[in-house]
Amino acid sequence: MIDNQINCVTYPLGFKAAAVRAGIKKSGKLDLALIYSDVPANVAGTFTKNKVAAAPVHVSKKVVQGGIAQAILANSGIANACTGVQGMKDAEESTELVAKALNINAQEVIVASTGLIGHLLPMDKMAKGISEVASQISVSGGHAAAEAIITTDTHPKYLTSTINIDNTEVKIGAIAKGSGMIRPDMATMLCFITTDLNIDQELLQKALSTIVEKSFNMISVDGDMSTNDMVIVMANGYANNPKITTEGPAYQAFLQELEALCTKLSKEIAADGEGATKLLNINVKGAASFEDAKLVGMAIANSPLVKTAFFGEDPNWGRVICAAGYSGAAMDPDNTVLKIGDIPLYAEGVGLSYDHKALTDIMTKSSIDIDVELDQGEAEATVWSCDFSYEYVKINGEYHT
Amino acid sequence: MIDNQINCVTYPLGFKAAAVRAGIKKSGKLDLALIYSDVPANVAGTFTKNKVAAAPVHVSKKVVQGGIAQAILANSGIANACTGVQGMKDAEESTELVAKALNINAQEVIVASTGLIGHLLPMDKMAKGISEVASQISVSGGHAAAEAIITTDTHPKYLTSTINIDNTEVKIGAIAKGSGMIRPDMATMLCFITTDLNIDQELLQKALSTIVEKSFNMISVDGDMSTNDMVIVMANGYANNPKITTEGPAYQAFLQELEALCTKLSKEIAADGEGATKLLNINVKGAASFEDAKLVGMAIANSPLVKTAFFGEDPNWGRVICAAGYSGAAMDPDNTVLKIGDIPLYAEGVGLSYDHKALTDIMTKSSIDIDVELDQGEAEATVWSCDFSYEYVKINGEYHT
Repeated sequence: MIDNQINCVTYPLGFKAAAVRAGIKKSGKLDLALIYSDVPANVAGTFTKNKVAAAPVHVSKKVVQGGIAQAILANSGIANACTGVQGMKDAEESTELVAKALNINAQEVIVASTGLIGHLLPMDKMAKGISEVASQISVSGGHAAAEAIITTDTHPKYLTSTINIDNTEVKIGAIAKGSGMIRPDMATMLCFITTDLNIDQELLQKALSTIVEKSFNMISVDGDMSTNDMVIVMANGYANNPKITTEGPAYQAFLQELEALCTKLSKEIAADGEGATKLLNINVKGAASFEDAKLVGMAIANSPLVKTAFFGEDPNWGRVICAAGYSGAAMDPDNTVLKIGDIPLYAEGVGLSYDHKALTDIMTKSSIDIDVELDQGEAEATVWSCDFSYEYVKINGEYHT
Repeated sequence: MIDNQINCVTYPLGFKAAAVRAGIKKSGKLDLALIYSDVPANVAGTFTKNKVAAAPVHVSKKVVQGGIAQAILANSGIANACTGVQGMKDAEESTELVAKALNINAQEVIVASTGLIGHLLPMDKMAKGISEVASQISVSGGHAAAEAIITTDTHPKYLTSTINIDNTEVKIGAIAKGSGMIRPDMATMLCFITTDLNIDQELLQKALSTIVEKSFNMISVDGDMSTNDMVIVMANGYANNPKITTEGPAYQAFLQELEALCTKLSKEIAADGEGATKLLNINVKGAASFEDAKLVGMAIANSPLVKTAFFGEDPNWGRVICAAGYSGAAMDPDNTVLKIGDIPLYAEGVGLSYDHKALTDIMTKSSIDIDVELDQGEAEATVWSCDFSYEYVKINGEYHT
């Protein structure tokens, strides 16, 4: 069952966390989070596909390749991206500082950063902050960690889940930050998931990779792909379920729950996109392939004309159909059907008459369904996006380097 | 020599034009333009690649396939897109009305529309307007035509050119509308070019296709691709130069002048993008291929984060490098160099120190050069874009259906 226990990443057994004000963010808010497992945990991850990947991405990829992690250190305020050799040194030194403070292996420390590109981490502040945050980790520290990783998000994002696997209670906790630079084909933002599940590392990676494709890779705020994003899951086995080593019912149960959790978190990220006032649920059906369905969904999700129309609460279906037309997917305008909030607006190549009052009611809602039926095949996909407001321009025009 | 003679499309010999207020635009402004050649002219065209192409696009493609046109009818206010069978009938009927009024062949009438998607043309108003506009065509009517085709453009766009080809004076005139929905890989907007050049139709098409790839297909305002866009050139031979039938020096001279004219017009369209305050000239060099150079340029041009940063006059080079990184082109962040207005900001994987005062001066200019050196090969491309302002959101959030 999906829930939102306030201790989030420390909700599963054997996890501790904390967050401090290390002085990296100019605002003086919480900016350094540490998540710790009492024992080395199996770890899986997905990372940005941007060729300009930040130093912490390179360092953490290696940790995931090793298969074991015991801690995640994440800072907000500075991205440690485009920082060259010194940036790599700083990311590596951060893992060593964490390892020393917690008496664990530096090769088992994930590091993540988010914030301004092109600035070096202030290592004096990092050293002091790591020492402080390591001394404060506790089983109730999850919520502070959720707060410390956000940047322009309007609120921290976290979810928890409790499931029964082989008659054992298994817990999952997750925190995420999104807001700007959210886009497909990558890990899309920072998300840290903890679970006390006992599962083989390769299956953990397989589960994560499968689910990221259907959740975090299906959201788009502005079409930009960040240099820093990653999704990490740590499984420490404290639930003591019989170890999952095959893709049997226990694996499937975990997969299903993880998907529900990641999907809900993805929608929360899209709904809290920079300056967003509305969540757009773009459901594409009848596509020739999943790739085509995603192409159509993403073209609609990324169209500034569509996004500004929804901000203006204008059911401008022409812009939606237009985006589907240039998406590159197989489609025939004469056989495509478009509905907004269950009201058919376009079919057989022309606009339809509709109940204006009913549609106006839908357009003012904070979550709106856009349904596109392509009649080209059986594949489908859902993409989550948000509208484009004055506030987006303000946030990104005034977020100075 | 590129110039901007006010009679524009009627500057070349043997062309007449006019525009009227047909009542299609709610504003009551000029909304119906007619361009006419005294004799049937060779015609070439490029059209939107959007699968949801408007009725006039289908009709005009057929005319171009025939190779001959004598008139272009263009209306603003209603796009006649997503209008099904009736839309096709209306577009065809428009060609017949023009043919009848001018006593020419309906198969030689180009029609173009721009404006709201999903609305039928008011054919009673069209009939009355066509009759009026046909009775008013004159050699000084080019400027009115330039005004009648614009929508959210802040000013009409037109250019003229006079060149010497084989000791003969040849004139070219062009009008264009841009503003919203400008994007690559298509004709990108409405542009009508007239010339009194005597040239083989196939060579005319080859010249246009070559140049559109380097000019109109290299601009991007918001990444959206319209259902209606087209570039048309009519050459009526009135200059009486020896007919161009090979790709010799005369052809090359025309090609070069047409490219200069189309490039200048493209930059004007980008600079006048919806809500734009700055023209961004994105020059990508050292790419492995032209396609890669264009990918990088377009990723930067389409990034809302880059565009809002320039609106905020913030030299956020991290967002530029980040966009280059996710463009899909071959690039190595450690060997990429980025300059804004000739000031190096990024090289060898890190940000460089720079003269803040000098860069601030550059960022406040109305035209800014962004230079990206990829060091992957010899190919290059220039993409033109604009910044993203509050005004863009206002225009497109309030442009109600």
